Amino acid sequence: MSLITLTSDSCTLTSATAMPRASGFLWNRKMMLHATCRGFVTAQHMQPEPARYSHAPVVEGKTFMLPETAHYAHHPGRFVYVRDLRSGRHFSVPHEPVRRAPQAFGFTQHPERLEWSVQQDGLDINWSLVLPVDEPVELWRLEIRNRLDTPRVLRIVPYFPVGYMSWMNQGARFAADLNAVVASSVTAYQKVEDYFKNQHLKDKTFLTCDRIADAFETRREDFEGEGGLTDPDMLRDGLKGGEAAYETPAAILQFDQAFEAGETQAWHFVFGPAFDEAEVARLKSAYLGAEAFDRTCAEARAYVEQGRGVLSIETPDAHFDAFMNRWLARQVYYHGDTNRLTTDPQTRNYLQDALGMVFVRPDSAKASLLYALSKQNPDGSMPDGIKLYDGAQFSYINQVPHTDHCVWLFMLLEAYLDETDDYAVLDADVAGQSVRARLEAALHWLLKTRDHRLLSFIDQGDWNDPMNMVGWKGKGVSGWLTLAVAYALRLWARLSGQAAPWLTEAEAMNAAMNTHLWDGDWFGRGITDDDVKFGIKSDAEGRIYLNPQSFALLSGAASEAQGERMVSAVATELETPYGVEMLGPPYTKMREDVGRLTQKSPGVAENGSVYNHAAAFYIYSLTQVRKGEKAFELMRKMIAGTDVADYGQRGQFPVFIPNYYRGDFHANPRTAGRSSQLFNTGTVAWVYRSLVEGLFGLKGTREGLSVRPCLPAYWSETKATRLFRGSTYHVTYRRGDQPGLMLDGQPITGDVLPLPQTPGTFEVVVTL
Amino acid sequence: MSLITLTSDSCTLTSATAMPRASGFLWNRKMMLHATCRGFVTAQHMQPEPARYSHAPVVEGKTFMLPETAHYAHHPGRFVYVRDLRSGRHFSVPHEPVRRAPQAFGFTQHPERLEWSVQQDGLDINWSLVLPVDEPVELWRLEIRNRLDTPRVLRIVPYFPVGYMSWMNQGARFAADLNAVVASSVTAYQKVEDYFKNQHLKDKTFLTCDRIADAFETRREDFEGEGGLTDPDMLRDGLKGGEAAYETPAAILQFDQAFEAGETQAWHFVFGPAFDEAEVARLKSAYLGAEAFDRTCAEARAYVEQGRGVLSIETPDAHFDAFMNRWLARQVYYHGDTNRLTTDPQTRNYLQDALGMVFVRPDSAKASLLYALSKQNPDGSMPDGIKLYDGAQFSYINQVPHTDHCVWLFMLLEAYLDETDDYAVLDADVAGQSVRARLEAALHWLLKTRDHRLLSFIDQGDWNDPMNMVGWKGKGVSGWLTLAVAYALRLWARLSGQAAPWLTEAEAMNAAMNTHLWDGDWFGRGITDDDVKFGIKSDAEGRIYLNPQSFALLSGAASEAQGERMVSAVATELETPYGVEMLGPPYTKMREDVGRLTQKSPGVAENGSVYNHAAAFYIYSLTQVRKGEKAFELMRKMIAGTDVADYGQRGQFPVFIPNYYRGDFHANPRTAGRSSQLFNTGTVAWVYRSLVEGLFGLKGTREGLSVRPCLPAYWSETKATRLFRGSTYHVTYRRGDQPGLMLDGQPITGDVLPLPQTPGTFEVVVTL
Repeated sequence: MSLITLTSDSCTLTSATAMPRASGFLWNRKMMLHATCRGFVTAQHMQPEPARYSHAPVVEGKTFMLPETAHYAHHPGRFVYVRDLRSGRHFSVPHEPVRRAPQAFGFTQHPERLEWSVQQDGLDINWSLVLPVDEPVELWRLEIRNRLDTPRVLRIVPYFPVGYMSWMNQGARFAADLNAVVASSVTAYQKVEDYFKNQHLKDKTFLTCDRIADAFETRREDFEGEGGLTDPDMLRDGLKGGEAAYETPAAILQFDQAFEAGETQAWHFVFGPAFDEAEVARLKSAYLGAEAFDRTCAEARAYVEQGRGVLSIETPDAHFDAFMNRWLARQVYYHGDTNRLTTDPQTRNYLQDALGMVFVRPDSAKASLLYALSKQNPDGSMPDGIKLYDGAQFSYINQVPHTDHCVWLFMLLEAYLDETDDYAVLDADVAGQSVRARLEAALHWLLKTRDHRLLSFIDQGDWNDPMNMVGWKGKGVSGWLTLAVAYALRLWARLSGQAAPWLTEAEAMNAAMNTHLWDGDWFGRGITDDDVKFGIKSDAEGRIYLNPQSFALLSGAASEAQGERMVSAVATELETPYGVEMLGPPYTKMREDVGRLTQKSPGVAENGSVYNHAAAFYIYSLTQVRKGEKAFELMRKMIAGTDVADYGQRGQFPVFIPNYYRGDFHANPRTAGRSSQLFNTGTVAWVYRSLVEGLFGLKGTREGLSVRPCLPAYWSETKATRLFRGSTYHVTYRRGDQPGLMLDGQPITGDVLPLPQTPGTFEVVVTL
Repeated sequence: MSLITLTSDSCTLTSATAMPRASGFLWNRKMMLHATCRGFVTAQHMQPEPARYSHAPVVEGKTFMLPETAHYAHHPGRFVYVRDLRSGRHFSVPHEPVRRAPQAFGFTQHPERLEWSVQQDGLDINWSLVLPVDEPVELWRLEIRNRLDTPRVLRIVPYFPVGYMSWMNQGARFAADLNAVVASSVTAYQKVEDYFKNQHLKDKTFLTCDRIADAFETRREDFEGEGGLTDPDMLRDGLKGGEAAYETPAAILQFDQAFEAGETQAWHFVFGPAFDEAEVARLKSAYLGAEAFDRTCAEARAYVEQGRGVLSIETPDAHFDAFMNRWLARQVYYHGDTNRLTTDPQTRNYLQDALGMVFVRPDSAKASLLYALSKQNPDGSMPDGIKLYDGAQFSYINQVPHTDHCVWLFMLLEAYLDETDDYAVLDADVAGQSVRARLEAALHWLLKTRDHRLLSFIDQGDWNDPMNMVGWKGKGVSGWLTLAVAYALRLWARLSGQAAPWLTEAEAMNAAMNTHLWDGDWFGRGITDDDVKFGIKSDAEGRIYLNPQSFALLSGAASEAQGERMVSAVATELETPYGVEMLGPPYTKMREDVGRLTQKSPGVAENGSVYNHAAAFYIYSLTQVRKGEKAFELMRKMIAGTDVADYGQRGQFPVFIPNYYRGDFHANPRTAGRSSQLFNTGTVAWVYRSLVEGLFGLKGTREGLSVRPCLPAYWSETKATRLFRGSTYHVTYRRGDQPGLMLDGQPITGDVLPLPQTPGTFEVVVTL
């Protein structure tokens, strides 16, 4: 039985039995929204700090978007109760809160829209959501068709919980002139300076409809009565028109509606935050109704289309194609265009999200590089986060000093220059210094923060956020960071055209790694303040880490023979059915000398989990040493949650790569491997780059497009279309006796397609 | 129909129809617990910062104990499902989550114990909770009696949700050797220094039982299945023994138990946080079982008895007596013995909670005074909070500078000296300075922080927390604080025996108030940075504030004629059926020049609400000007939620005074007046003092116990027993023609009972 149908345009879940974890997401420039097939919704908008307008019924921890959102009966959602006034039977759409098993069920993630379809009690119901491109507001369409050949009367009750808004003040009323429920609150604050921020907050939540309701209700508890969410008293008795005063608000409307045999009727709703009722009126007039809904769908689709990227492929693996051609680019675009809807993205995330944009909107990637450099510290180091507006604060992990931020500049730069050839950017001025000077200042800072062995200090953390106690006393070093610095130095030597002193320094660091941290079959992870090496064979737990191996392949620290041993060790020690673990064996208890990482912390994914960002880097490094088959195998595992067959086990809805597949597989085979369901991850830029430049080998150079694929040997023929500097290349890859490259029927010497005089469309055939 | 029975020993709710809001609370020195009659529970323990061990299923805002806790389907609670294995019918005790209407229902707050009794499906069920005095752990007893005259088989499933513990890591297992479900988590942190705190946290939650269960389950979602909380799949199918790995844990046990006709069986449980399984074992051996439960009840009762206070009364108002004799002292004791389970109590709260302890355990009040003074700043000011342990941090409102903290020292001192005559305390040394010197330094600081008019600066707030923008630019002044300083000066003049310079300064400030803020019928509240007077007649909103009137009566600023006008204005402008509002008319919109208060903020109670702390001060000031009847009337309103007749409307369970009766009565008559349900409030010390020293007029002096009652004239005879400096006074108050005072049958001249040579028991008759 097919549970899921994935196409380039949509992805549909068609069984209620697979419901528990399927989810999709939408975003626009002001908000993001994560919805489950059951109807639970987590939404955040920016003003400018992340805010909610539909709340849990308690004081929420205002925290970043968390992985593995816990749902519960009163979790925010968007629901419609439907009650047949003759039979007295009721159910709810999509599934929560009533949970009556439907006769048929569908949940579809379109690129720009989410759609639920439910067949129940002789009705076809379609419930659909789209977000405008530039407004934090939800547009919903409800279509109900009477499938019976007799007339009937239905009570239709859209139920949009608003939740516990504020302990300062909350309430709701029905504004007849707006045909809207408007809930109001006062955001709590204590310090005078916060008042001046808070006074601009959108403290209202509204729901408006294009049809006049027969009744409304705004008091959550009164609506439910003793029947609770599953059988609300007022669904039976009719809504009472109560206005919430100090009570938890909800936006609830009632339509008692006659349907002819076979008749279809539609309702449209706008739901979201507002500053005042004037803003409600503005949003209503802009977005309410059938025409506005359709127009918004078209605009939103056009917006997503802008993020289509530079590659489309046709391989023997149709599922791989569907995911890579549409959904991966969509996720890359989401990251790059919104910065994950944070106001102080971690510098490393900001730069890598920009790296993804190199393939989507290179100008935006360039702007991000320049903006990041404008925040560089006078000593050449980069701050822990990039503040995107003036009043932004460093929150969470950005309050902890990390030492790796500079290295990511060079990876972004390489991708950008290779794709665009825009070397002029190196001379661009950023606050009085050239980009070139700033990048070299960053390198000098990295060179300065090494110990006597030439290994890089880790301070309170490097890329591995939670490992904050390896070097907090100022002595501990990071093997991974040492390799990443060597890699950055090599990149800059090539891109700047100046070998000295950069290559010499890179080689010295690679040598230092080999002297101090080569452990026979892999590189160690670091050396603590107390001079204890870790990530080595003699460790019972955490004996091998993935990231040092990936970067040793990139930095040149590993000889070919070392590389073979490392890849083999990774396969033995770290591979699981769900991908490559970031370290192993997972820690089961604290190791004081290695810091927090030694706590069992699968929630942050670094311990035992398949942390996809690390796995993506490993994949990228494999493509750089031309181990294409292994790279493809791991890519395939990474999107395996997108397989119909795996769905039940993996629980991932097949439209995004999550930041991790959780847990310690050996200790918890039952629950390990589940998707985090969090779509924010540095993974996607690197998977996209691995696909374009690695697997399909279509990478830019100064001379033109180089063609150096490393496709699986068992693919006899594969096709790709690559957009590059204004041209379109249709590339066919074939296995054959005589390897070679043909451009528009002419053989090419070497593996670079020279830049055409004028951009055009070209046919390329690669014989492998 | 009687819904509630209140006695000195217990308070019982006996109807399911009154369920929605009735609640009680328990505390010990390590934790507090608030339970509703439906079974919802909010509990916090200290380690040393407030922590939870039973969580909402989301990341909770770790905030202070809030008023008006919002409950929801998955709110933490302690439940028992009962299913008859023959009929297949089930219900839950106490009421949530199944909500089946019981045949009979009772919820009883005993002084030391909470008890629910439910009659349903031929069963009598008793569910009872007690806390040990010095351990943050819950002891539960379940008793089930088969009322039928036939045998039957029941499935009994205690369900203790643990909730979403941590996004870092969570899980649960059944430890057979402990016969316990043990849930484990890792508390998230990001900064190295927090690790060293977190490593001592009790990150486990456990449930153990004195009977071996037939089955267990620890996975919340699997237990519920599609049936959800109201009809869990596993209640029907049997628990599966699942161990939670990364999943939301719950502690669930199953007993399939045969009952003979009329048979009663009992179970005992221990539930709470633990550091490790060794601690679980220790707590189990100390607290599990029938004997331990009974012993703990006895110990807990003895503990509460220590807080009985110094007065018991017998008036024509039996309900008033029941509340004042037992429950008020209990609440006073809770505050004084636990500091509301905060680690940085606001200085004003800390001192007033100590003031209550003057009548319960004077040594403790003295220790608090000395400890508070040990935190005095070098300039004589007091800090915004009193840190109770070394690592405590100022949180929430304590990060905002307030100017009133010094004045409360003198009110505590007066109560303490009058009750104990321990004037030696003035010479006690606190960190190198005498108490006397420190108190005078505090007064000098108060005298220094006045403007040219001799009015006291308000800075970012005084007693009125939220009014933080009246004087944040450094110019605004507080009328209330000016009067409070004058009052403190007068108190010190008397207690120190030195009129100069204190009385002179007090008179000057009283005069300044009359010059600048007397508004014809009342005193104004203050003058803003921009020289705008507020709390005056010409203001449309916030035209009269209660606190300046109370303190004008105490400070001597008001002449007798002014006093009459003020009391009359308060009656007209501020009295509601639920008591005296703190200000009126409530603000409906922001007034920039009066700060946050002008937002509509009933959640913090100062705007429009009957804020009982302010009301208590007004009551106290009325007793000081001998307006006993009005004082009694307002006291009576304050505990009116304790009236059976009022119950349905007020929604207060009759065992504590809440911090406020919420809301703007005129705008929201339907919802205004509801109890905040929060039992933390400075109110109780002042109500107790008003009762003892004011209404019953039994106040200590240097010479002995003075007797100056101001009882309602319509009480013809009233009795009180007063403990005072080791003696017991049985006092009878009678109306008569010849006012006079008799001690053991002998007439006394004046109104002071001279101190006896040796303490003893005395009979006193007062003819009024």
